[in-house]
Amino acid sequence: MGIGHVRYPTAGSSNHAEAQPFYVNSPYGIVFAHNGNLINTAELLQFMDQTAHRHINTSSDSELLLNIFADNLQKTGKFRINEEDIFNAIRDLMQQCKGAYACVAMLAGFGIIAFRDPHGIRPVGLASRAAAGGQGKDYLFASESVVADASGFTDWEDVKPGEAVIITRSSVSRRQVGHGAAFAPDIFEYVYFARPDSVLDGISVYRSRMAMGDALADEVERVLREKQLSVDVVIPVPDTSRVAALNLAQKLNVPYREGFIKNRYVGRTFIMPGQQMRRKNVRRKLNAMALEFANKNVLIVDDSIVRGTTSKEIIQMAKDVGAKKVIVASCAPPIRYSNVYGIDMPSRMELVAHNKSTEEIAEAIGADLVIFQTLPDLISSVRQFNTDISTFDCSVFTGEYVTGGVDEDYLAGLERLRADNVKAKAIVGGLGPLEGKGGGGVAERPNGASGAASDDIEVTSSESKNGADTVGLHNSWKL
Amino acid sequence: MGIGHVRYPTAGSSNHAEAQPFYVNSPYGIVFAHNGNLINTAELLQFMDQTAHRHINTSSDSELLLNIFADNLQKTGKFRINEEDIFNAIRDLMQQCKGAYACVAMLAGFGIIAFRDPHGIRPVGLASRAAAGGQGKDYLFASESVVADASGFTDWEDVKPGEAVIITRSSVSRRQVGHGAAFAPDIFEYVYFARPDSVLDGISVYRSRMAMGDALADEVERVLREKQLSVDVVIPVPDTSRVAALNLAQKLNVPYREGFIKNRYVGRTFIMPGQQMRRKNVRRKLNAMALEFANKNVLIVDDSIVRGTTSKEIIQMAKDVGAKKVIVASCAPPIRYSNVYGIDMPSRMELVAHNKSTEEIAEAIGADLVIFQTLPDLISSVRQFNTDISTFDCSVFTGEYVTGGVDEDYLAGLERLRADNVKAKAIVGGLGPLEGKGGGGVAERPNGASGAASDDIEVTSSESKNGADTVGLHNSWKL
Amino acid sequence: MGIGHVRYPTAGSSNHAEAQPFYVNSPYGIVFAHNGNLINTAELLQFMDQTAHRHINTSSDSELLLNIFADNLQKTGKFRINEEDIFNAIRDLMQQCKGAYACVAMLAGFGIIAFRDPHGIRPVGLASRAAAGGQGKDYLFASESVVADASGFTDWEDVKPGEAVIITRSSVSRRQVGHGAAFAPDIFEYVYFARPDSVLDGISVYRSRMAMGDALADEVERVLREKQLSVDVVIPVPDTSRVAALNLAQKLNVPYREGFIKNRYVGRTFIMPGQQMRRKNVRRKLNAMALEFANKNVLIVDDSIVRGTTSKEIIQMAKDVGAKKVIVASCAPPIRYSNVYGIDMPSRMELVAHNKSTEEIAEAIGADLVIFQTLPDLISSVRQFNTDISTFDCSVFTGEYVTGGVDEDYLAGLERLRADNVKAKAIVGGLGPLEGKGGGGVAERPNGASGAASDDIEVTSSESKNGADTVGLHNSWKL
Amino acid sequence: MGIGHVRYPTAGSSNHAEAQPFYVNSPYGIVFAHNGNLINTAELLQFMDQTAHRHINTSSDSELLLNIFADNLQKTGKFRINEEDIFNAIRDLMQQCKGAYACVAMLAGFGIIAFRDPHGIRPVGLASRAAAGGQGKDYLFASESVVADASGFTDWEDVKPGEAVIITRSSVSRRQVGHGAAFAPDIFEYVYFARPDSVLDGISVYRSRMAMGDALADEVERVLREKQLSVDVVIPVPDTSRVAALNLAQKLNVPYREGFIKNRYVGRTFIMPGQQMRRKNVRRKLNAMALEFANKNVLIVDDSIVRGTTSKEIIQMAKDVGAKKVIVASCAPPIRYSNVYGIDMPSRMELVAHNKSTEEIAEAIGADLVIFQTLPDLISSVRQFNTDISTFDCSVFTGEYVTGGVDEDYLAGLERLRADNVKAKAIVGGLGPLEGKGGGGVAERPNGASGAASDDIEVTSSESKNGADTVGLHNSWKL
Repeated sequence: MGIGHVRYPTAGSSNHAEAQPFYVNSPYGIVFAHNGNLINTAELLQFMDQTAHRHINTSSDSELLLNIFADNLQKTGKFRINEEDIFNAIRDLMQQCKGAYACVAMLAGFGIIAFRDPHGIRPVGLASRAAAGGQGKDYLFASESVVADASGFTDWEDVKPGEAVIITRSSVSRRQVGHGAAFAPDIFEYVYFARPDSVLDGISVYRSRMAMGDALADEVERVLREKQLSVDVVIPVPDTSRVAALNLAQKLNVPYREGFIKNRYVGRTFIMPGQQMRRKNVRRKLNAMALEFANKNVLIVDDSIVRGTTSKEIIQMAKDVGAKKVIVASCAPPIRYSNVYGIDMPSRMELVAHNKSTEEIAEAIGADLVIFQTLPDLISSVRQFNTDISTFDCSVFTGEYVTGGVDEDYLAGLERLRADNVKAKAIVGGLGPLEGKGGGGVAERPNGASGAASDDIEVTSSESKNGADTVGLHNSWKL
Repeated sequence: MGIGHVRYPTAGSSNHAEAQPFYVNSPYGIVFAHNGNLINTAELLQFMDQTAHRHINTSSDSELLLNIFADNLQKTGKFRINEEDIFNAIRDLMQQCKGAYACVAMLAGFGIIAFRDPHGIRPVGLASRAAAGGQGKDYLFASESVVADASGFTDWEDVKPGEAVIITRSSVSRRQVGHGAAFAPDIFEYVYFARPDSVLDGISVYRSRMAMGDALADEVERVLREKQLSVDVVIPVPDTSRVAALNLAQKLNVPYREGFIKNRYVGRTFIMPGQQMRRKNVRRKLNAMALEFANKNVLIVDDSIVRGTTSKEIIQMAKDVGAKKVIVASCAPPIRYSNVYGIDMPSRMELVAHNKSTEEIAEAIGADLVIFQTLPDLISSVRQFNTDISTFDCSVFTGEYVTGGVDEDYLAGLERLRADNVKAKAIVGGLGPLEGKGGGGVAERPNGASGAASDDIEVTSSESKNGADTVGLHNSWKL
Repeated sequence: MGIGHVRYPTAGSSNHAEAQPFYVNSPYGIVFAHNGNLINTAELLQFMDQTAHRHINTSSDSELLLNIFADNLQKTGKFRINEEDIFNAIRDLMQQCKGAYACVAMLAGFGIIAFRDPHGIRPVGLASRAAAGGQGKDYLFASESVVADASGFTDWEDVKPGEAVIITRSSVSRRQVGHGAAFAPDIFEYVYFARPDSVLDGISVYRSRMAMGDALADEVERVLREKQLSVDVVIPVPDTSRVAALNLAQKLNVPYREGFIKNRYVGRTFIMPGQQMRRKNVRRKLNAMALEFANKNVLIVDDSIVRGTTSKEIIQMAKDVGAKKVIVASCAPPIRYSNVYGIDMPSRMELVAHNKSTEEIAEAIGADLVIFQTLPDLISSVRQFNTDISTFDCSVFTGEYVTGGVDEDYLAGLERLRADNVKAKAIVGGLGPLEGKGGGGVAERPNGASGAASDDIEVTSSESKNGADTVGLHNSWKL
Repeated sequence: MGIGHVRYPTAGSSNHAEAQPFYVNSPYGIVFAHNGNLINTAELLQFMDQTAHRHINTSSDSELLLNIFADNLQKTGKFRINEEDIFNAIRDLMQQCKGAYACVAMLAGFGIIAFRDPHGIRPVGLASRAAAGGQGKDYLFASESVVADASGFTDWEDVKPGEAVIITRSSVSRRQVGHGAAFAPDIFEYVYFARPDSVLDGISVYRSRMAMGDALADEVERVLREKQLSVDVVIPVPDTSRVAALNLAQKLNVPYREGFIKNRYVGRTFIMPGQQMRRKNVRRKLNAMALEFANKNVLIVDDSIVRGTTSKEIIQMAKDVGAKKVIVASCAPPIRYSNVYGIDMPSRMELVAHNKSTEEIAEAIGADLVIFQTLPDLISSVRQFNTDISTFDCSVFTGEYVTGGVDEDYLAGLERLRADNVKAKAIVGGLGPLEGKGGGGVAERPNGASGAASDDIEVTSSESKNGADTVGLHNSWKL
């Protein structure tokens, strides 16, 4: 048995202390990792202190989740717990914890466990393969199906919203323990976050992006007609938007060209702080081929527009090499609200679309025109492949949060903390594979998050929630 | 003034000792870096020992080149040398050293220097920008023009074959010091090695690859007609072959699809030794989208086929997800001979095309059909953009080496050493930028060498030329 | 508040996992460090598993002690515990745990705690100083009084056997919670282990060593008279035996000379494995000055004889530079039994005195004569300075263990484990200071343990108790 | 063949660049290490630039010496040089270089070489042992004979002043190449710097220190009689002064006591910058045993008094534990002048004895009385064991420098540079052994330099001679 967790390769002692998985030795010995974000941490911390008497050493909500789980198990008071006890502990946890959480755990001498919040906001699934010796099976939990593919595991199945799965040496048990919540996976996984070759909740990310390209083509055609404009070439911002851009180009019957060359060596390890460095970074990462831009009306396709910094720089690069008109098409609607479920988007004030009309956005990023996917089109691009899903969390577009509990107070508090923590930040992605030495899985998850090409989004399951000076577990304690 | 050099991020003391730049303090203090490979090192080593009395501490031919240069300068016996002396020293060096070499140097208290072998096999050029203070100019030498672009330098000019350039605080002097050799740049730079957004010797790599796609389209059409076959889709092997594949698809009027998804996180830092690991590596790096392959005749476009390992694995992946027929088109002709000019290709025995017909190659890699670009088509795809170049070094396709001096004895010796050094190997790409702390330039050069996607080629300017146990400069000496 | 613990500067993952202090977050958050060794760990581990349901991740008995303490606190079930609860938890712990243990702990948001086993085998005390701001006091717990001296703390008091001390922001509370056991501090602290400038349980180590020298002088005089021998010079083995040797020489009225020169640069960081290396190591560490040995009857004074390896080498060195006769006087009686209370002596078979007469020991180490302190003399040398102490643990000399529970089975088991763990061994000295960044205190404790000069003894509070492959807390878990 | 050099374990890039040995590849390949200091570097640097055309990359005079040697060899212009050529090159070097230098070198494919300046200021010698295979001999050059002892080499012989020794596979050749200079070894080696078990230039350091104790006893007796004072106890400052103090006590017939306990764990790795930290450091390193001081007239014996910082602190410690009167006896006369021959003493202004009378020194360090050895007594304490030596360099006591060339201008310049370099400083000791991996020899040389106990002296063969910002050889060059 083993457990791993993907982190951004950042440095700093605060990060080290919050590295997952977390461990508690009482009761039984539990190791735990989590992708997502809780929204009622204040209440849970109070419970920890006053009722559970468990010391929370960091500001990671993953540590908090683990201790809620541990406390629920401890209440059984049993010498040896059974699966029933574990299902009950998770059932209770789901009533206590609000937010998005896809979790994996190991219980000493017992087995491995996964569960997913009742809304199923963040993904997690399982797969299996024949064991090396020939007898029995190996099992794997992971955030995305590609992890299973890469390691030779098959028969991928999603853990269902509100479901818990327990795998011991002798059995696989699954049970629905969280009830009454609408299934609402985060639609942003399909737009940008998940790897295109993953299948999440039965929907191929690749196919959904093709569909986004098709739908966006109709919108582009409509708007161009309205504006009496035409485009000579479709150029994707590599790498995330290629799939959609290709379909869009084919549907519009406009040539598709690889007009931006990406420097593969200025990567995420090179993310620089500050706006100015970010600009320079874009120029180091992408190069515009004059041949494809000069004297043309260019349609640049991106997956989404977040801060607008990258878009602005890319548009300027296109103009620098002679583009006549630069029109930007976004596979996603305008992002106007914070993500509170584990994707580390900037705060509302930093979002270029916040409180801006489409025209104002175009002006802000220097485009001649910006065309956004409509939300209904985005939803149907994804939903058509699994109509069992009735809703998606679309809060970054609408400001409506599926879990409730996210009001103006909450968001203002979040933004205050974010500002405080700007230096201490450093972040934790989704779940890696449980298998082997974690080699293949390290950095598997945040696959599409290639900053420069698609506006800077960082992935987190647990922001530093307060400005306190937390330090490494093995070094000292904030007592 | 500063100097930097790109290396593969490998570990090991042997590598450390051979890290460029090299330094000698006598005469004057010279710092030196080199891209390429010499072919008369045995003779030069003897000269060093018996005539120049200079100790060569490593098996790097860059150290050798530096010492030839140093010896030529030392012969002047002058307190202060001038540009004439330097031009003469390089002129003599070009008569002494056979092979490919693009070099940069710094001379203490004097200036920076670049020169390029008389055949101009490896590239190097210069660019300038306004100095930070507003007065005067900054200058930069680099292997490829993209380095200048990324750092805000403009007015890129190639250093000419046999030319030396000396830049001091007050002047830029250029002189043709090597004569009588045919200009013959390495055509493989255009096929695979250079970044697509570079311009080498007046030829846009991007345009040359588009032309390769167009020319290959004709050949594909001819062969398919002959074989009475048709293809349903064109799929590039990311990332190098995209540009050519897109043109090819458009000319054939066949849909172009991004059928392979690349995992950006299993990179070069993850290169594993051994054939079996290499196979597993391909599967970790690429994923085939069943949707694009199932029940189709697929035309996979790659830049070239070297060992065939990657091709074989890619073809198998395509079949695993349901491809009906898999046809491979290569932008380059069959590679049947070693590269001795600084690109670290495998030895002849390991080349899948060595001593094989096209049909045998197809069988070896499991393809239903392989279609190669013809050499005349390849040459004209590149040459059409600068007809001043009358020849290219095409030795990996033809076995004819432009410098002479590469006979069966030489090659057999090379292969013996390579086998000995397999563990110690590593090493050293082209030249990085001189600017800043070398940050941006680190790993700039070996830009397209993304192993899994395009057969494993490694870049080297200086293989370990013997099996001796060499160690780090600062630690001990092989005296 | 802070806590630190002294470790030998050894490497290896196993050590890292067992590095103190240990931490549990439930209940309340407790950080814990311990000096000593438990002898009923098997029984306690079973209790942990079956009753307390606490996972023990390493084979350190310090982790076990912490969890016994934590379990006792947890049983209160209180939101906020008080001093009474803590005293009760320690009282219960003292009934559960057999062996030697001097412990310090921090309780989150509450204060710092120290306690000492009912026999008071290992030392711990407290001191105070004016707080930096001028108001209130700083407190410090440490194993030895010298730590207080070095950091400007005064008013050193020993924690009494069976006593617990709780220091909060507002108060210092002390209570006798363990009862009915004879006070029996380890006499070996005075012989070798403690720093000479420490005062332990009211007894100056320095004075006790002077007294050992005086008493040994009488014994030496008696034996020499009996054997009709005389000595020309007294030479100490630096550094531990200097104090006793000087008194001995003065009482015998024989010249005292610094005949062995110690190389201060081949230190503990240079401890080499294996008998042969140990021999070489002695020669690197000490050099015999021929002038002081040649043609003389030499009396070499050492604190004790353990393995005999060092003694043998030292005697040979003396003979090599011309000593006529080499007589060895030991400040302690023959060591014939294992230490099970936290001093990492070799197993019985490795002790040169085990099952040997004095004559046989002399022969084994190559001495012309060996003279041992008698046990009554040793005891009275120490006890005269605090006659309130009626007994000492002298088990390494007598085989009688003050705690009971150490029978042949236990010792055989211990030796089996020791053999298994020879590679994994490391480990862990006494307690360092709580103050500052722990700088001053690092390595404060094992002050006299200078291997080469005084036979290799290593200090441990917790041997690896089984051969299991344990790994670092932050890396993985032995579940 | 191998070569090693002892350095203080300090950090910083400047140090790394100046780490010895140094290497030049032209001519022949030479590796070089040096102990001492040159005093005509300005002149030699000019020669390097204008005549030899050799770039000097650091401010180390060792690099300069190597290049003088290399230049002299290069002038031969020979394909293969012989011993004659090497002797001639060293002969010329001795005419060019002024100062103190004991040097070792390796010549590629030829052998190892040692030489010593004509005054023989710094020590170096050679020894041999049977080679491992049984045939032939191994040879070793080292600064002190103890290195040979520790590694099993015997037949130690000093390299004579002005002598060069060449050892090849087949022969050992010695020749006097420097002439006409008075032999004047640095007397401070005997006082403090060398290990007591070394024999330098035929004089046992141990015996010379015993003699210093005897001579100092007479002076102490005289002064005490004059002042009508008596002392109750003699206490050495460990470790350097023990040998002298013991003899002194015996001659005075006053009890000798180990009144200061040294903490072996606060070592040189713990040297802290700044006066205040240095004070705290003394308290961490030494502890005064009240028993030996209270109500006594105490005679503290130290080897020398440099800054006075440590003395002052030690005296205060003695008073704090109740000493009635504290009298300090120094084995060396007052140190009033800089050492320019490789021992890194503070500049004149920082020497407590500079421009002060004995009474003023006593007042400055808080002693009731200070008694210094007289210079004639010191000289005869050393010289009596080898009357072939007619003079010693005693410049730190007299301000008379045996090499000439050290005038007020030179010293003022030196002090200016020292002030500039205070941060960049970091230092290089004597020569380590050539044998093995250099293990045994690491830190062998600066053996008595135990800061806290004997005033802070640092050892250097080559101070940073100017304030230029020099950096590591392998990283960049100061061109």
